[in-house]
Amino acid sequence: MLINSFSDTLAARTTVETWMRDFQNWLCRQLETADGGATFREDLWTHEGGGGGRTCVITGGRVLEKGGVAFSAVWGEMSEAAARQLLMPAPGYFATGVSVVQHPRSPRVPISHMNVRYFEAGNGEAWFGGGLDLTPIYVDEAQARWFHQQIKDICDRHDATYYPRFKRWADAYFYLPHRQETRGVGGIFFDRLTVGKDGDFEELFAFVQDVGEVYGRAYTALMRQNRALPYTAREKYWQLVRRGRYAEFNLAIDRGTKFGLETGGRTESILMSLPPQAEWPYNKVPAPGSAEAETLAWLRQGVEWV
Amino acid sequence: MLINSFSDTLAARTTVETWMRDFQNWLCRQLETADGGATFREDLWTHEGGGGGRTCVITGGRVLEKGGVAFSAVWGEMSEAAARQLLMPAPGYFATGVSVVQHPRSPRVPISHMNVRYFEAGNGEAWFGGGLDLTPIYVDEAQARWFHQQIKDICDRHDATYYPRFKRWADAYFYLPHRQETRGVGGIFFDRLTVGKDGDFEELFAFVQDVGEVYGRAYTALMRQNRALPYTAREKYWQLVRRGRYAEFNLAIDRGTKFGLETGGRTESILMSLPPQAEWPYNKVPAPGSAEAETLAWLRQGVEWV
Repeated sequence: MLINSFSDTLAARTTVETWMRDFQNWLCRQLETADGGATFREDLWTHEGGGGGRTCVITGGRVLEKGGVAFSAVWGEMSEAAARQLLMPAPGYFATGVSVVQHPRSPRVPISHMNVRYFEAGNGEAWFGGGLDLTPIYVDEAQARWFHQQIKDICDRHDATYYPRFKRWADAYFYLPHRQETRGVGGIFFDRLTVGKDGDFEELFAFVQDVGEVYGRAYTALMRQNRALPYTAREKYWQLVRRGRYAEFNLAIDRGTKFGLETGGRTESILMSLPPQAEWPYNKVPAPGSAEAETLAWLRQGVEWV
Repeated sequence: MLINSFSDTLAARTTVETWMRDFQNWLCRQLETADGGATFREDLWTHEGGGGGRTCVITGGRVLEKGGVAFSAVWGEMSEAAARQLLMPAPGYFATGVSVVQHPRSPRVPISHMNVRYFEAGNGEAWFGGGLDLTPIYVDEAQARWFHQQIKDICDRHDATYYPRFKRWADAYFYLPHRQETRGVGGIFFDRLTVGKDGDFEELFAFVQDVGEVYGRAYTALMRQNRALPYTAREKYWQLVRRGRYAEFNLAIDRGTKFGLETGGRTESILMSLPPQAEWPYNKVPAPGSAEAETLAWLRQGVEWV
């Protein structure tokens, strides 16, 4: 066996994997209800090392132009290069998670991302990771503050240090150094919450479940609040430009995308996070004082939203 | 001095840099004439380590929807990480080059790329690199063969081993492993043609000049041949999907882009290579026997075009 096979590890793994599957279903139904137009289609796939996944994709919704909720549970041995890049203590691994990106049609509804994941390395170490962040095309300050407050509330139920630590981590992670811009208004990001070191299995798993659920509740609330807001052609164009930045982050910077592609994950499931369309005009700089310039001014690290 | 300061090195550097500047002008005029609609605008910029560049961008042309011809001559010390990634023998460097990407409006005119570059490392080693490749939205076999023949002809004038070696290198370099697709029909790619080892300065420099010039002649010929061909909305849509692949290559794979962003190059000059727009539909697979499927069948390594 490549991976630790003690019976308690197997039980933990099965428990997490089952919740991930159920959570995927729950989240798809929440998003479909808030969309009111389209439903998710499912693609099943297998991983050559072992395991596989179910990718659920929605397109052409009333609110969601393109979105994905991807579940996977895979195992095997990764390449030395991938193991090094991920600071894995051993090349054998088991990984399960749900990854979500939603690209709404309207520039008034933010792009959103959420990921929860559980890893076991070949040496028996096990940890959770995850995060969520919001990318408004135009920052609505009150909504950004409300979004962060929802996250802080669930963090505080588990550990008062989580929100400030993981909010800073999100600021550092969801960042485009070549643009000197954060991806959006952030949220939280955490990795390597290690079982037995950072908490016991039940505590850490309960936190990760709360992270998944707060995403579902908060994002569908924002969809409902903003879906009927009118917008102009100029605002739609700005959305396409911001989607270009989103593609830059996912393709050039995001470690999750690199991990997936390098470990032979299913390309269409990994790259479902890319926007339906994007534009790259040369050197577009918004006019000072414009709504676009105002949004750019928010896209920096260290903003205290709560 | 970070870099070798023998007077012959300085003379070599100045000679190459001057040619690069002149070549940028020549190429912009060639492309403007073949376009017949728009002209290049210039942006000057400086590099914080030393040097700078001139980025020439054309938008809204009759043929060229967005294209760039970027000259730079920069020096300084790169980060340890960048030096390692580039296998640089020392962190001090001087680099000058011209990089070109053209995104035509019509799906009948291929996307094209060309780069010529000259490096000096802090230990006095100096080398040339470069390449060009063609990315048709629909592969026209005869044109692809003609394009490769033009390149082979100039290669053969210098060294009979160049075309076969550098053609294979392009197949390996312009490749998207996660798609198992080449970027297009390829061309040539070469790096580290080292002065004193792979040829003397004059020989290697003359080859690199020919690479730049064959690009200008061959690509403007293709622009003229294909610019008036009619196309459908479906063909335009396929172009947007293929442009998505182009963005994937440039952002996730291309070492030149990484080098530029990591050494603090001007972001808008580096990312001018990104398409004006792109689309990422989920899991689009062309129907068997369609023109799109036929093009995909060409996008593999090892096709012998001449």
